[in-house]
Amino acid sequence: MQETLNYIQQNKQRFVDELFDLLKIASISADPAYSAEVLRCADEVAKHLTNAGADKVEVCKTEGYPIVYGEKIISADLPTVLVYGHYDVQPPDPLDLWRKPPFEPYIEKTALHPDGAIFARGAADDKGQFFMHVKAFEAMMKANSLACNVKFLIEGEEEVGSKSLEAFVKQNTEKLSCDTILISDTHIYSNEQPTVTTGLRGLSYVEVEVEGPNRDLHSGLYGGAVPNPIHVLSRMISKLIDDDGHITIDGFYDNVEVVSAEDRAEMNKLKDDPEAFKNSIGLKGTEGEKDYTTLERTSIRPTLDCNGIWGGYTGEGAKTVIPSKAFAKISMRLVPYQTPDEITEKFTKYFNKIAPDNVKVTVRPHHGGMPYVLPSDTKEFRAAKKAMETAFGKEVLPYRSGGSIPITAMFEQVLGAKSVLMGFGLDSDAIHSPNEHYGLFNFYKGIESIPLFFENYTNGN
Amino acid sequence: MQETLNYIQQNKQRFVDELFDLLKIASISADPAYSAEVLRCADEVAKHLTNAGADKVEVCKTEGYPIVYGEKIISADLPTVLVYGHYDVQPPDPLDLWRKPPFEPYIEKTALHPDGAIFARGAADDKGQFFMHVKAFEAMMKANSLACNVKFLIEGEEEVGSKSLEAFVKQNTEKLSCDTILISDTHIYSNEQPTVTTGLRGLSYVEVEVEGPNRDLHSGLYGGAVPNPIHVLSRMISKLIDDDGHITIDGFYDNVEVVSAEDRAEMNKLKDDPEAFKNSIGLKGTEGEKDYTTLERTSIRPTLDCNGIWGGYTGEGAKTVIPSKAFAKISMRLVPYQTPDEITEKFTKYFNKIAPDNVKVTVRPHHGGMPYVLPSDTKEFRAAKKAMETAFGKEVLPYRSGGSIPITAMFEQVLGAKSVLMGFGLDSDAIHSPNEHYGLFNFYKGIESIPLFFENYTNGN
Repeated sequence: MQETLNYIQQNKQRFVDELFDLLKIASISADPAYSAEVLRCADEVAKHLTNAGADKVEVCKTEGYPIVYGEKIISADLPTVLVYGHYDVQPPDPLDLWRKPPFEPYIEKTALHPDGAIFARGAADDKGQFFMHVKAFEAMMKANSLACNVKFLIEGEEEVGSKSLEAFVKQNTEKLSCDTILISDTHIYSNEQPTVTTGLRGLSYVEVEVEGPNRDLHSGLYGGAVPNPIHVLSRMISKLIDDDGHITIDGFYDNVEVVSAEDRAEMNKLKDDPEAFKNSIGLKGTEGEKDYTTLERTSIRPTLDCNGIWGGYTGEGAKTVIPSKAFAKISMRLVPYQTPDEITEKFTKYFNKIAPDNVKVTVRPHHGGMPYVLPSDTKEFRAAKKAMETAFGKEVLPYRSGGSIPITAMFEQVLGAKSVLMGFGLDSDAIHSPNEHYGLFNFYKGIESIPLFFENYTNGN
Repeated sequence: MQETLNYIQQNKQRFVDELFDLLKIASISADPAYSAEVLRCADEVAKHLTNAGADKVEVCKTEGYPIVYGEKIISADLPTVLVYGHYDVQPPDPLDLWRKPPFEPYIEKTALHPDGAIFARGAADDKGQFFMHVKAFEAMMKANSLACNVKFLIEGEEEVGSKSLEAFVKQNTEKLSCDTILISDTHIYSNEQPTVTTGLRGLSYVEVEVEGPNRDLHSGLYGGAVPNPIHVLSRMISKLIDDDGHITIDGFYDNVEVVSAEDRAEMNKLKDDPEAFKNSIGLKGTEGEKDYTTLERTSIRPTLDCNGIWGGYTGEGAKTVIPSKAFAKISMRLVPYQTPDEITEKFTKYFNKIAPDNVKVTVRPHHGGMPYVLPSDTKEFRAAKKAMETAFGKEVLPYRSGGSIPITAMFEQVLGAKSVLMGFGLDSDAIHSPNEHYGLFNFYKGIESIPLFFENYTNGN
């Protein structure tokens, strides 16, 4: 192991340089205008896997963007770890809030990252994180220390709901067969308190449309006599959450896992610092579901958020129009044992129920994802905890995160393997936001932890 | 007069051809990208005035877009009519709803316009309407039938609040001195029931901003614990109008003119056809202030409408973001004796009052305008009514319109002259909307009515 760690130490700078090249590719899967960039990114990932020492590297076609595969099988007697990651990124808008262009990576020190952080779209989510696995694999190959078989599955549609992944996994169960799945696409509680993510929320995502008149109207001539779809949509959105922060959709909480008072106490050992939380995002006050802490609200409780709203005139100056239509994108984060199909259906029913008679409402479901829990008494959890404790020199706690990686549930169902979520970001990394970044400290701690995980997992620790 | 009408008849087709040339100019005053087109339009208007026979034609500089002036003074003993119009147009978006490009005019027959209508941005508002005055003037000059002095004042900032007009009028009271002002920028009740507009609503227009966190956040990691500005804005908008259609802003109705039951009965003689109204805009049902008819809701009652809303991710696909900010454009139509300053102040106070503590709210006032009433016992009203009765061969009724032409109050104050609103559009002309159009029948009836107005007004009828 020492030889592996030495190799990592000696090649630190090159690893970052190579990551910069990947970050320069605008692989925005949500925007068709960037499809050439997404495809180019897949090819680059394949080259990196080959150079690191992987066999059978392939850019596999799908209905959507390709999935990059590679493997190193050293013995049928050893366990196999499937590494999952994604090379696509979120759209960078609003562009004007980035201090430098999102696809021109640079390093800058911050209060939380005294060693510097890499700023770029995808730095933490997920290029910087999956690339740790490529570089840790290279180090194990060079040091001849690979402890078990490894397979790589790096997809290009995670940010648009992993549309092609399930079909691909189902068609390739033999190729992808494994004992566990290792994913770095989450964050730790803090650099002082490292954690392994043991729970993720699921997701239901819909787009809604409210249509009033069949064309845009002059608000002087028609104002006061017709349903204005912006007002109707606003009223409907205001009816989705009540004054206690409860979601009002009929039956929304029916299947929600009830976390015991004991488990809630254990979870709240992670010290919640409301002032630090508020200051980190310039907020005057938090809000949320009554009788739950901020930590609980963002992990063990389901939530609903409008992610976008638009309608009418949004340009410069003043236009006196009553628009024909108004739109919103609405997502719900789910907890065990809610399912996206159930919640999307309940949302649709309720949204139609609260619509006034004089408008037409359409609900279009986007992708969804199941919530996921990894029990702390599993071999996977123990191997990750121990690896990170060695690398960080600190006790590692289990942690439930509010984000979603919907494919963990699918992997379990199709491949029969649990996913271990050993991510190394911080929640302040601004993923999905302007000025996304990833700490150099975190990047290197990740690369060091991965070979230790392989060793621990193979040895059954 | 017969010679004038003959000239109009003989030159009908050319008048439309010339209007087409004006409509091809994208004189969008709200969008700085089109400033060259706005300036070019001013020059074209000046050329048309000169060609029609006006003297002292001038493209007058202002702080914003130029004002085109021209005049024909035939005798100091005769009254002077100041014709006002505007050569700028509304932005054409949403572009994808236009059947043909907005600045490529064409003629098409419709159910309401069996003789055909001119489709283009600005066809009715206001190029097609002010151009009637240029052509009627040309006809009177050619037929040597001009009954009084005439001055033209055609501005280029009406759609952005006539920002430079007041200063210009104040600096040129001598040049613009007149006995009455004639404006064609309104609509008649229908081609079967022509009307003269005797009242217009005023306008208060604001843009609001709600800021929650100081940057966009990942809705998985933060959702459920922070104020989402889209939700906050939606709740605030839903609190502006109650279930009875009353605006809830404190003191909003304090100064509203109380229209007598008698006057309301007179007004409601204009047959309101709720089914036809609904069908014309594809609506399942109307709504509005309790105890008022649709006609009253859009004329003698003040209203509030969101004209635009935006925030978060509005592009293709799904992005799981909690935006830092959400925005809306909100306008209020005012009636006598409300004033824009009063209402903007009351709105701002109330909007801040209903804002929760954990967000930051900003209200930015745009332009405003005073409401206006022309009594039906004036010389101006009688001259217009008689002119249109001759041209249409039908009784003409007084009509209060819901739209705003804020400058009428300013003209009265600075020039001491009443404006007569002799517009010829229909409320179905889709002004400010895709596929704006103006009936050929209406265009020609306007050109015929104008010389009759000049004659009636001069003769004191």
